[in-house]
Amino acid sequence: MTGRTRVLRVLAGKSPDHRPVWLMRQAGRFLPEYRAVRANHGFLELVRSPALCTEVALQPLRRFDLDATIVFSDILVVPEAMGADLRFVAGDGPSFGEPIRTAAAADALDGAGLTDRLGYVYEAVRSLRAAAPEHALYGFAGSPWTLYCYLVQGEGSDGFPEAKALLLREPAAARRLLDRLTDAVIAHLRAQVEAGADVVQVFDSWGGLLSPAAYREWCAPGLARIAAEVPGPTVLYVRGGHLVEETGRLGYAGLSLHDTVDLDRVAGVTQGNVDPALLLAGPDVVRADVRRRAAQLGGRRTHVWNLGHGVLPGTSPEAVGAFVAAVREVG
Amino acid sequence: MTGRTRVLRVLAGKSPDHRPVWLMRQAGRFLPEYRAVRANHGFLELVRSPALCTEVALQPLRRFDLDATIVFSDILVVPEAMGADLRFVAGDGPSFGEPIRTAAAADALDGAGLTDRLGYVYEAVRSLRAAAPEHALYGFAGSPWTLYCYLVQGEGSDGFPEAKALLLREPAAARRLLDRLTDAVIAHLRAQVEAGADVVQVFDSWGGLLSPAAYREWCAPGLARIAAEVPGPTVLYVRGGHLVEETGRLGYAGLSLHDTVDLDRVAGVTQGNVDPALLLAGPDVVRADVRRRAAQLGGRRTHVWNLGHGVLPGTSPEAVGAFVAAVREVG
Repeated sequence: MTGRTRVLRVLAGKSPDHRPVWLMRQAGRFLPEYRAVRANHGFLELVRSPALCTEVALQPLRRFDLDATIVFSDILVVPEAMGADLRFVAGDGPSFGEPIRTAAAADALDGAGLTDRLGYVYEAVRSLRAAAPEHALYGFAGSPWTLYCYLVQGEGSDGFPEAKALLLREPAAARRLLDRLTDAVIAHLRAQVEAGADVVQVFDSWGGLLSPAAYREWCAPGLARIAAEVPGPTVLYVRGGHLVEETGRLGYAGLSLHDTVDLDRVAGVTQGNVDPALLLAGPDVVRADVRRRAAQLGGRRTHVWNLGHGVLPGTSPEAVGAFVAAVREVG
Repeated sequence: MTGRTRVLRVLAGKSPDHRPVWLMRQAGRFLPEYRAVRANHGFLELVRSPALCTEVALQPLRRFDLDATIVFSDILVVPEAMGADLRFVAGDGPSFGEPIRTAAAADALDGAGLTDRLGYVYEAVRSLRAAAPEHALYGFAGSPWTLYCYLVQGEGSDGFPEAKALLLREPAAARRLLDRLTDAVIAHLRAQVEAGADVVQVFDSWGGLLSPAAYREWCAPGLARIAAEVPGPTVLYVRGGHLVEETGRLGYAGLSLHDTVDLDRVAGVTQGNVDPALLLAGPDVVRADVRRRAAQLGGRRTHVWNLGHGVLPGTSPEAVGAFVAAVREVG
């Protein structure tokens, strides 16, 4: 059974020969060969080059026995392609020239030619598809709410207070922006599926800032529309542990769990939940923890081994190797 | 009925004439008079001066109709008084010279003379007690886990990965450090009660980094011991919304809720949960939101109005005034 078949069986609710494995942010700074590429190319230059995206996505597959690959991209290419002025300043993270805090500013975002302007992403998907035919290929997008947070705040933030305040102060403008971002996310995910992605994952990195009631009001409708309108299996990742019930009702094939969610709390098709900090703790501890989790899963095979958040930059490649090997041992 | 009586009635599970109100971080950067004090005094200098602590704690009471005051201090004075080398670098937040990652390093922390070395905190409590006799006086401490996070990581962090990795790699050292910090927190809270604090609040700012199972294993025993061994009413604050069931079982008189917890989810004596971002949204929105929450509370009066996290530095004093006035309207 190939990794691709394994992942697709799990997301269809069927048991694979053994549980598949991949890691969020498996292509990234923890790999010296990735840092070597980045030494010569800016982040946005890398994201816009299908050849370089393919190279860095293949790097972890050369080192580790993984079942899936994910297109190398960034969630903020969507608002950028709608006309938002995205900047990445080293050390400061992403920012936008002008925060969007009115319905007029939301309407000024240009969603019409989005997929033309994001052709480089779909080219990267096609290229990776050809280079890794036996791996499950994940496409992805940020959730409408997460993109909204960056656009309204104007930059990364601890708690995105301006983004949350706009919900209360200008609910119509907030809804308008969220709706337009939902349309854009659907278009972007569809185009990735058309380019060859087997499955798409929605990253709701900042959904956990909201209470369950606020999540039902502001996030759930758009997320449900995405699951309904994008062809093929969909996976939803939310950073945070208090929205498991809300996210379970939105029609996704699988839920990718943050490390604050206990595995035995969620039924159905799951992915993730291993604390990235585990990979700082040494190979013996990694093996013991994987065995403990396997015991928790019991006979349930509809689970994709993964982390509850991205690989930490200080992780050693050896630790990732130990994790993947331990997963293969327990199946 | 004084503010003091009002708060003490609520924490005893009895109805007050109307629900009391105070705000986490009500003494702080959002007030120009606080910034004026800080212009001439470093943060640790301020914390170590009972006179200045009293002055900045009284500042919000002069402006707003609040029912409670909280001693001005910092959670990190406890590990500092145990010998950890605490530094506050402007813009970078707190850091410690040498992270603590072994049982020997945990044992080297000196808990014996703790309350002698923290006499300036108790002097600040006595001084504030005398200056605000009709306000409920809160003492506080960081939770053992939250202090552990800073000591093991060695500095503030997004997710404290080294602190979490130590739980898995060196569980005996982690437990030893947590136990020693629990003893220190109990001693520090007792001494505040002896100095005149009516109630003490434990801030578990980083408890939300753990899953419910990990919270039960690593945090719950120490937190339960604190609630049992500290005299007088105790309040527990956890930043995060997925631990409501765990924290409800620990013996605290009240739970101070983060803004990711819906008010109708929790029974018993509660405090908090208003999103600090609300205070960025303008007085009309503040009033409407307070009315909505009052409707949610219905006849339940065993609730202390407060925020789900501290007042944001960019909040206007007018917004805080509008919030307190709105609370007084709904009772």
